[in-house]
Amino acid sequence: MTLKKLLLDIKKIKELQEFEIKGWVVSNRGNEKIRFLTINDGSTISNMQVVAKGEIISKFNLSSIALGTPVIAKGLIHLTPEAMQPFELILELLTIVNNVDEDFPIQKKETSLEFLREIPHLRNRTTLFKSIMLIRNSLAFEIHKYFQENDFLYMASPIITSNDGEGAGETLLVDDESKDYFFKQKAFLGVTGQLHAEAYAASFKKVYTFGPTFRAENSHTSRHLAEFWMIEPEVAFYQLKDIINLADDLLKTVISNTLKKYPDEIKYLNNINPNLIETLNKFLNNKLTVIEYKDVVKKLTEFKDSFEEKNIFFGMDLASEHEKFLSEKIVQGPVAVVNYPKDIKAFYMYQNEDNQTVGAFDLLVPGIGELIGGSQRESRYEKLINRMNELKIPTSPLQWYLDLRRFGYAPSSGFGIGFERLVMYVTGIANIRDVIPFPRVAGQIKM
Amino acid sequence: MTLKKLLLDIKKIKELQEFEIKGWVVSNRGNEKIRFLTINDGSTISNMQVVAKGEIISKFNLSSIALGTPVIAKGLIHLTPEAMQPFELILELLTIVNNVDEDFPIQKKETSLEFLREIPHLRNRTTLFKSIMLIRNSLAFEIHKYFQENDFLYMASPIITSNDGEGAGETLLVDDESKDYFFKQKAFLGVTGQLHAEAYAASFKKVYTFGPTFRAENSHTSRHLAEFWMIEPEVAFYQLKDIINLADDLLKTVISNTLKKYPDEIKYLNNINPNLIETLNKFLNNKLTVIEYKDVVKKLTEFKDSFEEKNIFFGMDLASEHEKFLSEKIVQGPVAVVNYPKDIKAFYMYQNEDNQTVGAFDLLVPGIGELIGGSQRESRYEKLINRMNELKIPTSPLQWYLDLRRFGYAPSSGFGIGFERLVMYVTGIANIRDVIPFPRVAGQIKM
Repeated sequence: MTLKKLLLDIKKIKELQEFEIKGWVVSNRGNEKIRFLTINDGSTISNMQVVAKGEIISKFNLSSIALGTPVIAKGLIHLTPEAMQPFELILELLTIVNNVDEDFPIQKKETSLEFLREIPHLRNRTTLFKSIMLIRNSLAFEIHKYFQENDFLYMASPIITSNDGEGAGETLLVDDESKDYFFKQKAFLGVTGQLHAEAYAASFKKVYTFGPTFRAENSHTSRHLAEFWMIEPEVAFYQLKDIINLADDLLKTVISNTLKKYPDEIKYLNNINPNLIETLNKFLNNKLTVIEYKDVVKKLTEFKDSFEEKNIFFGMDLASEHEKFLSEKIVQGPVAVVNYPKDIKAFYMYQNEDNQTVGAFDLLVPGIGELIGGSQRESRYEKLINRMNELKIPTSPLQWYLDLRRFGYAPSSGFGIGFERLVMYVTGIANIRDVIPFPRVAGQIKM
Repeated sequence: MTLKKLLLDIKKIKELQEFEIKGWVVSNRGNEKIRFLTINDGSTISNMQVVAKGEIISKFNLSSIALGTPVIAKGLIHLTPEAMQPFELILELLTIVNNVDEDFPIQKKETSLEFLREIPHLRNRTTLFKSIMLIRNSLAFEIHKYFQENDFLYMASPIITSNDGEGAGETLLVDDESKDYFFKQKAFLGVTGQLHAEAYAASFKKVYTFGPTFRAENSHTSRHLAEFWMIEPEVAFYQLKDIINLADDLLKTVISNTLKKYPDEIKYLNNINPNLIETLNKFLNNKLTVIEYKDVVKKLTEFKDSFEEKNIFFGMDLASEHEKFLSEKIVQGPVAVVNYPKDIKAFYMYQNEDNQTVGAFDLLVPGIGELIGGSQRESRYEKLINRMNELKIPTSPLQWYLDLRRFGYAPSSGFGIGFERLVMYVTGIANIRDVIPFPRVAGQIKM
């Protein structure tokens, strides 16, 4: 049994019940008469306090046990309802599984995030990174659970593709050592699984992907990675408003369940970023704000002196500063901006009757900016092919995608969530490199 | 509500209850007085039978509706307990959402798997591929559920790495358009997430990955892909026998739950491959056979005339024909072969005291051969570095991995499941290209 399950089941625990914990020593204090070891087993950031008294201390040479030592501790539960921790373990038997060399860089003292980024294989031993990764794990599983309970099929869109996605150009290429076209043509790492997901939505109705996507992103920001995970639901018979509701309900469900499952970890993160819990609860308890792009432009114009980019006009792509200002200052919470000008959005988005805008939405959140981007898809073959021609996107490699419109197409809508951005939002962590185990950016692939 | 949920909840359904189904027309027969449309909504391979009588047939022009047409049908449930299907829908209102062009290649008549492989964006509309993909979805989610319920942390091992994994050499390379080392060094697509998972097992104790892995595999077999999904659990404090038990329990749990969740789909697949259900049940109801590699060699020698490769000796790598013979003819079920000669296994495996073998296992299943490969890891720094030197594996790129042994290493064990091979095993499908939506092999990336 893990410490996590013990803490959840505390009422079933009895005085003097036997317990064994396998984990790593987090602290070791006391003297020759009484010693307190705390042990972490990885299931929670909470530690088991292990108490040793009298001769057992010298028998197991407890005074010399270094931080990070893996041990197996057996003993009896002593309930301590008056103390911070509801129980402790009275040590009877300790096995030291292995040693720790003296240059182990993870010690009690604080270390900077920059330093920890240099040792991604060890930073997971800190309470901060344990908190982040436990919450990341919870969010991932809650996402799967939400979709499964709501009748979605999990599908694997391909990673290696022959088309470069949205035509953004910033794609990574794949080949074997001989560099002689292993796939008999140029092969890219996928920037989206959406186009393939649309083919599956045409039979399973509700589908989603959850896999890695790639950008040859050269900008070194705190919000971009070359390799990141995306969740992309695609739903046939759904229109723009339906898919926005899905995004809102999905986010609220997975965040709410995660807060319940990992209260200690969220509290720990809230100590670092004291607005975290309040911000998340505010989102959970309020209806999502939906606002037209054209109204955003008007609003931002009123505040144009607040921006570096003061030239605000219909047709512009919102900069990160505009997106953040909108969600942080104007709406003060998550906001879905809808009906963007078609010229700043992808070719496959539904062309509205005004001939100017497309049925797209971006969901912006405070501190991060864009968390989700999605749209209703253009269902009309002629409109879609005309738009591709306007944008000079070659139609022949995407003929299969166009053909979906000819073979019983039920109009579909979908969106993509940048999973690491969601983890940033829920943990309050400011740099995307700290919410993925081994971050990949231009010029750097540690380990 | 989906048709799947309706079928599960059939006892709650009442005569003349209103129901709406959104889906695609699968068959359309009858005359001007009575027509039967069957509609599939993607939640199951079962279809809803929709009955239309009298003037409603001409009102909605039902006779002209082509296969594959997306429709929304509303009506009243009529219970038919005496019939094959426990209910049908008496049509009141039909909306035709879109048309189907005449060259739609998915028709009632049988089509070959080879032909369907040419149209991976459409083959998902057939009953066969719906069955496969529903079961694939179930297996994926059951795997996540199993690990989550058993205290594992889902971690994202990186896809792009600076080391080429097990040194097999068959790796794919990644770079940007300029081919000028986007990552400032040679970058590969990962062939395993295990090494990084070990770093996380050293703090979370029980972890698993579930993501795509890649091989520049040039052989065109029915069991290999260039891009496939792998599940890799890694558990600290676990030895070889523990990890074999985990593999067995995981497989039995996810297969058993999937058979319960998708009985119609399994029955359909059993009609194609009549031993399927029997084979799976035999595995579920029996203890896994565990056999020493050296005993396998003796056994196979007795049958050497059955093989193309008749030279059977201690130290050889078992060929696919040997693996299949062992599980199909000798054991007649899944079998874990343990303690392989060290020279045919990877550098990181635990070196047994005999100095000849390593604490590895392969789990072989009938029809497929290797489904799982795993091992206890070498925990001793000196033994590990010596083995790397013997094999001329450069140690400096893997110093971080070696260092895990110096910083409080609790010996760990783990394995990898080829997810597509598991789907093959459970669906009885013989070619791996038919169990992944868009298969990638050398020389071919369709769509």
